[in-house]
Amino acid sequence: ATGQPIATVLQATPATYDRVVQRAVERFQVWQTVPAPKRGQLVRDLGAALRAVKEPLGELIALEMGKIKVEGWGEVQEMIDICDFAVGLSRQLYGITTHSERPGHRMYEQWHPLGVVGIITAFNFPTAVWSWNAAIAAVCGDAMVWKPASTVPLCAIAVQHVANRVCADFQAEGSDGLFNLVVGPGATIGERMLNDPRVPLVSFTGSVRMGRWAAEAIARRLGRAILELGGNNGIIVSEDANLDLAVRAILFGAVGTAGQRCTTTRRIIMHRSIAPELTGRLVRAYGQVRLGNPLEDGVVMGPLVTEEAVEVMMAALEAIRAQGGEILTGGRRRPELGPCFVEPTIVRPELGPCFVEPTIV
Amino acid sequence: ATGQPIATVLQATPATYDRVVQRAVERFQVWQTVPAPKRGQLVRDLGAALRAVKEPLGELIALEMGKIKVEGWGEVQEMIDICDFAVGLSRQLYGITTHSERPGHRMYEQWHPLGVVGIITAFNFPTAVWSWNAAIAAVCGDAMVWKPASTVPLCAIAVQHVANRVCADFQAEGSDGLFNLVVGPGATIGERMLNDPRVPLVSFTGSVRMGRWAAEAIARRLGRAILELGGNNGIIVSEDANLDLAVRAILFGAVGTAGQRCTTTRRIIMHRSIAPELTGRLVRAYGQVRLGNPLEDGVVMGPLVTEEAVEVMMAALEAIRAQGGEILTGGRRRPELGPCFVEPTIVRPELGPCFVEPTIV
Amino acid sequence: ATGQPIATVLQATPATYDRVVQRAVERFQVWQTVPAPKRGQLVRDLGAALRAVKEPLGELIALEMGKIKVEGWGEVQEMIDICDFAVGLSRQLYGITTHSERPGHRMYEQWHPLGVVGIITAFNFPTAVWSWNAAIAAVCGDAMVWKPASTVPLCAIAVQHVANRVCADFQAEGSDGLFNLVVGPGATIGERMLNDPRVPLVSFTGSVRMGRWAAEAIARRLGRAILELGGNNGIIVSEDANLDLAVRAILFGAVGTAGQRCTTTRRIIMHRSIAPELTGRLVRAYGQVRLGNPLEDGVVMGPLVTEEAVEVMMAALEAIRAQGGEILTGGRRRPELGPCFVEPTIVRPELGPCFVEPTIV
Amino acid sequence: ATGQPIATVLQATPATYDRVVQRAVERFQVWQTVPAPKRGQLVRDLGAALRAVKEPLGELIALEMGKIKVEGWGEVQEMIDICDFAVGLSRQLYGITTHSERPGHRMYEQWHPLGVVGIITAFNFPTAVWSWNAAIAAVCGDAMVWKPASTVPLCAIAVQHVANRVCADFQAEGSDGLFNLVVGPGATIGERMLNDPRVPLVSFTGSVRMGRWAAEAIARRLGRAILELGGNNGIIVSEDANLDLAVRAILFGAVGTAGQRCTTTRRIIMHRSIAPELTGRLVRAYGQVRLGNPLEDGVVMGPLVTEEAVEVMMAALEAIRAQGGEILTGGRRRPELGPCFVEPTIVRPELGPCFVEPTIV
Repeated sequence: ATGQPIATVLQATPATYDRVVQRAVERFQVWQTVPAPKRGQLVRDLGAALRAVKEPLGELIALEMGKIKVEGWGEVQEMIDICDFAVGLSRQLYGITTHSERPGHRMYEQWHPLGVVGIITAFNFPTAVWSWNAAIAAVCGDAMVWKPASTVPLCAIAVQHVANRVCADFQAEGSDGLFNLVVGPGATIGERMLNDPRVPLVSFTGSVRMGRWAAEAIARRLGRAILELGGNNGIIVSEDANLDLAVRAILFGAVGTAGQRCTTTRRIIMHRSIAPELTGRLVRAYGQVRLGNPLEDGVVMGPLVTEEAVEVMMAALEAIRAQGGEILTGGRRRPELGPCFVEPTIVRPELGPCFVEPTIV
Repeated sequence: ATGQPIATVLQATPATYDRVVQRAVERFQVWQTVPAPKRGQLVRDLGAALRAVKEPLGELIALEMGKIKVEGWGEVQEMIDICDFAVGLSRQLYGITTHSERPGHRMYEQWHPLGVVGIITAFNFPTAVWSWNAAIAAVCGDAMVWKPASTVPLCAIAVQHVANRVCADFQAEGSDGLFNLVVGPGATIGERMLNDPRVPLVSFTGSVRMGRWAAEAIARRLGRAILELGGNNGIIVSEDANLDLAVRAILFGAVGTAGQRCTTTRRIIMHRSIAPELTGRLVRAYGQVRLGNPLEDGVVMGPLVTEEAVEVMMAALEAIRAQGGEILTGGRRRPELGPCFVEPTIVRPELGPCFVEPTIV
Repeated sequence: ATGQPIATVLQATPATYDRVVQRAVERFQVWQTVPAPKRGQLVRDLGAALRAVKEPLGELIALEMGKIKVEGWGEVQEMIDICDFAVGLSRQLYGITTHSERPGHRMYEQWHPLGVVGIITAFNFPTAVWSWNAAIAAVCGDAMVWKPASTVPLCAIAVQHVANRVCADFQAEGSDGLFNLVVGPGATIGERMLNDPRVPLVSFTGSVRMGRWAAEAIARRLGRAILELGGNNGIIVSEDANLDLAVRAILFGAVGTAGQRCTTTRRIIMHRSIAPELTGRLVRAYGQVRLGNPLEDGVVMGPLVTEEAVEVMMAALEAIRAQGGEILTGGRRRPELGPCFVEPTIVRPELGPCFVEPTIV
Repeated sequence: ATGQPIATVLQATPATYDRVVQRAVERFQVWQTVPAPKRGQLVRDLGAALRAVKEPLGELIALEMGKIKVEGWGEVQEMIDICDFAVGLSRQLYGITTHSERPGHRMYEQWHPLGVVGIITAFNFPTAVWSWNAAIAAVCGDAMVWKPASTVPLCAIAVQHVANRVCADFQAEGSDGLFNLVVGPGATIGERMLNDPRVPLVSFTGSVRMGRWAAEAIARRLGRAILELGGNNGIIVSEDANLDLAVRAILFGAVGTAGQRCTTTRRIIMHRSIAPELTGRLVRAYGQVRLGNPLEDGVVMGPLVTEEAVEVMMAALEAIRAQGGEILTGGRRRPELGPCFVEPTIVRPELGPCFVEPTIV
């Protein structure tokens, strides 16, 4: 996200992808026979291993993706928390028993694993989204193949190394080959996974546009999809709102992760009577947001993820201006910080104040 | 509740009780083998039969217990609603399946009926409380023995007749002897039931004092108890409350069922600044409450259940006066209406305004 | 199914479809505000109305679709049962509350209706599948549009009339326009529904081939699908099986509904040692299956649904013969009974005995 | 259990008990405001701390209570497992939301902690039973007071020290004073707890006789009880049973923990035809059970918990002999090993073979 190359990562070919999935299918046969509470122990070990690397892993997220260090640590904490939760689930996985119309007859449901789960993640949470899927899937008895966003492969490689070590140390049979990683372009590797009948479930995180494409491909083969797509979230500020609280909430919601979250606040709808006051306060607050190296203490906002993201944002601002909108604050590149830095921006389109954020999931 | 005898009811002897329970134990053996969805059909039939007698049964409740006609109908509606709910449950009765530590091992829970359920109900809801227990128990496969409050045997007898006819018409085996009724004093019949090891579960509704006694007896034999005891409910009226709404809510909560509900409002805690205004409005509203024959249209409050209840209330008012409290409105007997009529009453004890209601469950 | 026209049904145009959906969208706005337990009352009334027409409706199913009368009645009973179940659900619709990481913070989920639900049903259960969707959807607060299979419009029209009358008699606001019917071809009306963004959920029952097509169309617009597709069910008969029981189970599973159920038994895999005995018994049993008018007492198997279905079956038998398979019994048309009658058939392909049934969902 | 004093433990006075409970009540006020997921972190830390002391703590259990070392370790593992499970629950604690009859009205349930939970445990699982209660209660937001069996105070003290250290290291407010221990006689301290209105829930593990006494006392004050009492478990061996498997299962069920488990097998009901063979095999197997110091490798059965337990067993054997029963194997004291050692014993009462085990919970 600084625009400087960090490392070079080999991209998987379709043939590599096929070998990885094939192996996952084979390993799934073993893993599914491990009792769920024992599967939970592996996930507990994974949580402990992540706890041990929380700081460096959070900083790698900051370095590669551009979110600030504190958010990077927070992302690793989310991984740890989901592991704790999933360990508990490993002694549940409840189905129901129910009464039958037929005398002397019993009915019960028991949940079995699906097989190999595909996990396609987006750039903005390069590791947490994997963990939400992976911890639950591992406890359920599924094997996994992970295709991370092409812009953040290093985070994925780091997490995969942690998972590999945990599996190697795990004293029970069956965990090796459970977690798998394939780094490669969506257009080849991603598409292959969406259409792969060996992958009964794909968990896809990305934009709405890509989500439609993924959903359609998976549905065509009667696969199952978990879709985590974009949002267009608004905050409504009423006449009698506490403006201190509102400014803080908007700042947190709109500027956090440089506005690149699916839960990012993108629109503020405010009552006419407070509009001048609130707008003024927001402009002042935005002016004080410290941009810079996300690894530095005190920095509140890092760069966007890529130069392409900056271009998309600039084009959107241009369009707003062309339609008669006004840029209230921000909107400029900050090349002295790096090629991906832009100021946080508030615009007022013809209809009233709103935010413009770069294209995100 | 009018003080006029309606009918004479024979009281069961302990020997009669023993025979009834013995028969219930035997019939339970058959009923528990009927599939739950079929048991649900019986409960659906019971709901339909109650729907057909909603008006006369509601009026019998009013006549015997003293609540107004509209409340009597409402009580029958509650019986109908629980039947609808229980029919749905008859296709659920879900247990859970859960994953085991042991490879190749399955665990699931399946719910079985307990046996004969004892149902001891209070005077204030002479039929609804039975139905809450009976509809669920019937669906679960339990047989039942009902001991109603001694003051309201006719309601119980009427409901039992409805249930008997439904069972007789039911086309499946096993429902006869499912619902049973024993009318008799708590001191002999009730106590026998509490201590009866053939009755694994007793559902008891009554005062807190009686509830302790019941709980202790049942616990001594490691039985199970469902206790629905009294309350001492308050309404807090804050400084900026809508007083129209508050007056209506208090009137509904305190005067409904002549203050003889476990959910009756007994205390009003109000902010000093609104006390004079709210108290005045309440006094006026209480003055307009129409007392009279609960079967007459327009009557809002009927008699208390017995003359004993009136005596208890008078003694409580006396005690409040002796402690320096003040009676703001009501508090007088209305012998011209009948021996059990008293005016709805508001008192202000030394600490502030509060209500006095007769002793109820 | 007898090949005789029963009635002529006008087919909806796309414009008609659009008006129907538009009205459903409007009526949904009202229905969703009716409390769920009240919605349950409508479904209880629907169950009662279906109970009242169980015999004639079951016979109409037999007449139009070709299943025997007893199965037609059974199908109506399924409608009644789901109504009972759904009435109970109307007092549940449980979400969960869960504890939060944040102090003084509460989290709970509450389920809201989706909107207009599309229901596309297949010929083999012309009314039951509708009811499974409709009773649950109505309780949930959704409005519905039903597109039945083109071969069985009369059953749908009859059921819709029952629903209309129930809605008209329902004493609460909001139920009119809740249940809607559009009769028309899948290629125009069905496709329009699959692609209609006003229909957030489509429940589709049909063949696997059609299911893929439906799933893909719905996914492309990020809609939700419930798919009830075909099966290829086998029975495994082991060495020590009770052959009397096996013959009865196979007959019930394979010949019921003339083999046109998604749960139809299509393959028997038997242990070598019992193969001659079991095959002999099955051939004898098949020889005694009485074909005929599905409305006549004693008839066990009626016609297939259309002449096209007969053609498909004949082609499949031809293919099996060409591959070296053997027809053990049946396989002939019975034109004297009608154009859609064929004998129940057992074939032994090269791999061993198996059944051939017409193409069904 | 060896009859040698290990240590001297001061017994709490009623006044000490009162102070401990008072402090728990106060600390509960703080702990209940800690968010449940954070409470789960404390339990995760407790699990980690127990994992670290699994070996020595398991051996202390063996030394004080007399079960063999492997069983002691297993008991600590149970503590660890419940912690893992409870951590997951800390993000659940689900209530339900449900739909209301009233328009525009919401209903949801949220679970709140009860207050101070009393935990009375038995000698045979001196630590695991505490953990089942303590881990769940801590996650729920309850504080606790533990009264262990008088015969095994050292195990309790050791566990309490682990818990104290975990609480001291816990970085959040509120955990100190959460776990409390009172060592003292049941007749004074236990009874005080059963009758203590500050303790809304008592979890009691012990004999059926003591359980009745506890249940009655708790019920009298309308408290809540969790009762884990004794069993009288039988194994039925049918005509065609695999006798190798049966012998192993019986040995595991009857001799494990020296027959002092609530799940101990106490009766074998076997088919007449296999009785001689199975009895012979069991007598031989019992003859090979190695008695001795429970801390030594290879020992399968340790001493009973106290000399009183030995006396009770001897009296039971005497009674069986007096009634015409026969001792098939065992039944003798082994004073050379220690005062609490007895041989595992099989008796055949007049009705057929059965086991005699010492009085246990």
